[in-house]
Amino acid sequence: MAVRQGRYTILLPSRPAVAGTAAVAGKKEGEGPLVDVYDKVFEDEFAGEKTFEKAESKFQSLAVSLALEKAGLTHASIDCIFAGDLLNQCIGSSFGMRDTDAPFAGLYGACSTMSLSLAMSSLLVDSGVMNTCVACTSSHFCSAERQYRLPLEYGSQRAPASQWTVTGSGAAVIRNIPQSPVHIDAVIIGRIRDLNIKDVNNMGAAMAPAAAQTIASFLIDTNTKPSDYDLILTGDLGQTGSELLKSLLMSESNLDISAVHNDCGLMVFDVENQDVHSGGSGCGCSAIVVCSDIVNRIASKELKKVLFVGTGALLSPTSSLQGESVPGIAHGVLLTAH
Amino acid sequence: MAVRQGRYTILLPSRPAVAGTAAVAGKKEGEGPLVDVYDKVFEDEFAGEKTFEKAESKFQSLAVSLALEKAGLTHASIDCIFAGDLLNQCIGSSFGMRDTDAPFAGLYGACSTMSLSLAMSSLLVDSGVMNTCVACTSSHFCSAERQYRLPLEYGSQRAPASQWTVTGSGAAVIRNIPQSPVHIDAVIIGRIRDLNIKDVNNMGAAMAPAAAQTIASFLIDTNTKPSDYDLILTGDLGQTGSELLKSLLMSESNLDISAVHNDCGLMVFDVENQDVHSGGSGCGCSAIVVCSDIVNRIASKELKKVLFVGTGALLSPTSSLQGESVPGIAHGVLLTAH
Repeated sequence: MAVRQGRYTILLPSRPAVAGTAAVAGKKEGEGPLVDVYDKVFEDEFAGEKTFEKAESKFQSLAVSLALEKAGLTHASIDCIFAGDLLNQCIGSSFGMRDTDAPFAGLYGACSTMSLSLAMSSLLVDSGVMNTCVACTSSHFCSAERQYRLPLEYGSQRAPASQWTVTGSGAAVIRNIPQSPVHIDAVIIGRIRDLNIKDVNNMGAAMAPAAAQTIASFLIDTNTKPSDYDLILTGDLGQTGSELLKSLLMSESNLDISAVHNDCGLMVFDVENQDVHSGGSGCGCSAIVVCSDIVNRIASKELKKVLFVGTGALLSPTSSLQGESVPGIAHGVLLTAH
Repeated sequence: MAVRQGRYTILLPSRPAVAGTAAVAGKKEGEGPLVDVYDKVFEDEFAGEKTFEKAESKFQSLAVSLALEKAGLTHASIDCIFAGDLLNQCIGSSFGMRDTDAPFAGLYGACSTMSLSLAMSSLLVDSGVMNTCVACTSSHFCSAERQYRLPLEYGSQRAPASQWTVTGSGAAVIRNIPQSPVHIDAVIIGRIRDLNIKDVNNMGAAMAPAAAQTIASFLIDTNTKPSDYDLILTGDLGQTGSELLKSLLMSESNLDISAVHNDCGLMVFDVENQDVHSGGSGCGCSAIVVCSDIVNRIASKELKKVLFVGTGALLSPTSSLQGESVPGIAHGVLLTAH
C-alpha cells in the first residue's frame, strides 16, 4: 500500500507496472527524430475522418487498443480508463473512449494530463482495488490551433516563444506485474502555481514555475538529488520554458538539473529544422514521447530512473480575454526499470 | 482497503466520512425550495466580480473554504482537491483553486463531476494514502448559457425539454472519521453510453441511459433492490430524463425505482413555478443539493442509505455541430448514515 514520503510525494511499494504502451502520431511528428518508435504514423491529418476532432478521438481509440494488445489484454479487462485532452469539454476522450464499455474517469490537466492519468492509474492499481487501469491523452495541431488561436486558413505568423501542438495520442496500460521491465515507483500530484505570466504565446514560461515547484518538492520529499536520476523529463516546456525551469530551480532551490534534464517538447521534433519555434506542446506531446521512446529505453535499461513531470497551462481563451494570467500545474511520476 | 463487489462496484470498508460540506448558490436557486439549507446565496449573479466566469471561480473557492471550516480544517490539511466544471478548459476550477496551494487533480465528467470527485476522493482516502481530500464542482447559468447556447442578450426561447443550468458550487471534505454522521460506503465508476440522442435541448434523454446502466450495475453487483435504499438520487435528469430513466430500468432490467427515486434537478427548483422547464442541470445542480439538503438529512438519520448517481452529457458545441450524438455517463456513490 502506498505511503507518503514528505509532504507531497507518494511512494508505491507494489511498483505498478507499465504493462503496455502505444503512441500514435501525425505526419509532422513522423518527420521528427522519434519516427522509428511510434506504433502508427498517420500521413493524413484527418486520419480518414471528416474533422480534426474526430481524428483526435480516433487516435485515442487506436492508442488504447494498441496498448492493450501489447499488454496481452482486451477492453474487457479494464477497471478504469483515465483520459483527457485539450478540446472543449474533452471531446477527444469522450468520443475516443465511447465504445470501450469500460469505466471511464475524465481528467483535465491541460498538457499535464499524461502524468496525471499515469498517477491516478498507478495509485489505484497500487491500492489493490483496480487490477488494470489505462492512462491516455491526445492533442491535434489542427483542432487545437483553431480552438485556441485562429482559423488555420489565416496562416497566422507565430511568435518566437510559441510552441507547436503535437498531433498524436499515447496510452499506457498500468497493472500489477512484478516481472515487468517498467514500473511506476512514486507519484506527486502538483499544485497550481501562477507567477502572473499573461503572454498566451509563451506557455513554457507559464508552466515552468509549476514544474520547478513539483521537481523541488519531489527531490526534497525523497531526499534525492538530480544526479540520482538518469533523466528528469518535463512535458512540454520547450526551449524557453526549459531554460526558465533550470534557472528557477537554481535560484529558488539551489538545484542544478541541467545535466539530467530533457523536455518532451524538445525531443518530439527536430527543433532547429522543423520550424516549430520553441518546441512541441499539447497533451499528446509528452504522451507520444513517454509511451514510446522513454518506456522503450527504460525497458532496455538504458534509463533506469526517470522522473517524468507533465506540465499544464490552465488557461482558456476566455480567461485570457478577461485579462487573467496563466496558472500552471505539473504532476510527476517516477518511472523505473525492473 | 477497498474491495470489488461484482464487476463494477467498489466497497469501501473504511467508510470514508463526509466531514464537512458547503453549498453556495445563486439568486434563482435562493428562490427555490432549498433556500434554507444553503451556506451562502449570492443575490448578484456576478458575485462582485467582473465576469460570470470569475464569479463561478469565486463560488468554488468559497465553497471549499466553507466546507473546510465546517470540517475544522484549513487548506494546509488537503492532500488532494478533485474538482471540475463545465467551462472550456475547466477554468471555473483552475482559477477557483489557484490560491489553495494544495495538490489539485482536475476532473471532467460534465454534470457527473460531483459524484466523480466524491468517488475519487473516497477511493484515495479509503486506500490510506490520503488523509483529506476535497471534492468540488460548480456551474453558472450565465457562463454556461453563453458558452453552450447563445448570448444571454438574445433572450432566446427555450425548448420544453430543456433544463436550467444551476448557478452555484458545492464542496465536500472527505476524510477518515469513524464517528462522523455521514459516510461513503461504495462507489461505482460509470461507463459511457450513447443511445444516439442528438437533441441538444434534451440532455435528460441523453443522460438517462447511462444512469440506468450505472444504477442497474450497482444493484446487480451488490445484490440489492431499490427498496433497500431510502433514496436513489440522480444528478440532473430533470422531468424528461427521470421518466426515461424509470422506464429504461423497468424495460431493460425489470427494476422499479419509482418509489425511491428523486433527481437533484427536480429538487433544486420549484419546477412548476420557477419557469425552468424540465428542471435544473449543470455540475452545480447535484453539487448544491447533495452538499446541503442530502447530507443534512443523512446526518439527521432521516435518510440512512442514499445512492447518489451524478449524470453527465459528454458533448460539446463542436461535437454537436459535427453531427455527433450525445454520449452520457453516470458515476455513483453510496452515502450512508453512521
